[in-house]
Amino acid sequence: MPHITLNSSEPGIRGLLRFRPETGRPLSELAEVLLRGPSTLTRGERELIGAYVSALNGCQYCASSHGACAAAQLPEGMTLVEQVCGDAGNAPVSAKLAALLEIASAVQQSGLQVSEKHVDQAREAGATDMEIHDTVLIAAVFCMFNRYVDGLATVAPEDPVVYAAGAQRLVTDGYLRPTAQLNNDR
Amino acid sequence: MPHITLNSSEPGIRGLLRFRPETGRPLSELAEVLLRGPSTLTRGERELIGAYVSALNGCQYCASSHGACAAAQLPEGMTLVEQVCGDAGNAPVSAKLAALLEIASAVQQSGLQVSEKHVDQAREAGATDMEIHDTVLIAAVFCMFNRYVDGLATVAPEDPVVYAAGAQRLVTDGYLRPTAQLNNDR
Repeated sequence: MPHITLNSSEPGIRGLLRFRPETGRPLSELAEVLLRGPSTLTRGERELIGAYVSALNGCQYCASSHGACAAAQLPEGMTLVEQVCGDAGNAPVSAKLAALLEIASAVQQSGLQVSEKHVDQAREAGATDMEIHDTVLIAAVFCMFNRYVDGLATVAPEDPVVYAAGAQRLVTDGYLRPTAQLNNDR
Repeated sequence: MPHITLNSSEPGIRGLLRFRPETGRPLSELAEVLLRGPSTLTRGERELIGAYVSALNGCQYCASSHGACAAAQLPEGMTLVEQVCGDAGNAPVSAKLAALLEIASAVQQSGLQVSEKHVDQAREAGATDMEIHDTVLIAAVFCMFNRYVDGLATVAPEDPVVYAAGAQRLVTDGYLRPTAQLNNDR
């Protein structure tokens, strides 16, 4: 049960975006541009970084929902998501994505943990400055979302089918739909 | 020196907002509504929570800049900021603000660290659900900003005068000014 009385029974961050639409709007816009906007990282790769950080933070709702989003947009599907979240160091990803996942893992601990060596390794594997920037920001953003969702003890459904259905809606409509829908529902 | 090549010499998050304005805009809007929008928590109290979390995360730039913003908007000024950041448990604040700072400290560790006891204590001291919500989100947002700023090794000026001047600009113009100014500068 959430720590505060929300104005809906929506699980995870969805209930929070509805409870406080003033902050919900920029949060949704941030997710949309960072995870789905123009980038040389695929949408699947960006969702995978978010799911991985969420798993490291032990945030069931975010790891499940963004894991499902990653699976829906990666050729390797849920198999790769589970490999990365279970043991990123041995997951079958490109050298570039492996280096970016290492940066994300450092950010999850603390921004101060990201070393020049991490960055050099990513650059040697072909990562651009913008890809390194976006990886750090995605990891930082998920450290926020995870704390927001768990810090208020929102509900996380158990059934993977719920997350797969949510991922299909996100893949089709993006992160701005929920807020727009909220306003229409009022 | 920052890990990536930025397009300005601006320190801390300012250089990052300029480097990637697509994400800079929702980040600035989030800060504006959460730290300066309508709330029963004063602007000084909200900046103090942000400065406290930044100090816990060891983020010199954010602790200094938001500490200066808190000092500029709190009757007790920098003395209280230093007391809270140095030893929050013994700082001379209201029971409500003390309980909210405890929640913020839990969020800094992990969202999963926020217990019912934390929330009950805040509520007994008079905190509303919205104040508890905003405290969790402010703490979570600073866990993001701190990781973003330090994860890319941005520059943090040493001189407190720089932060005091920046705080005066923020108190007057808010968080949306930098982005607007960036666009005009182009």
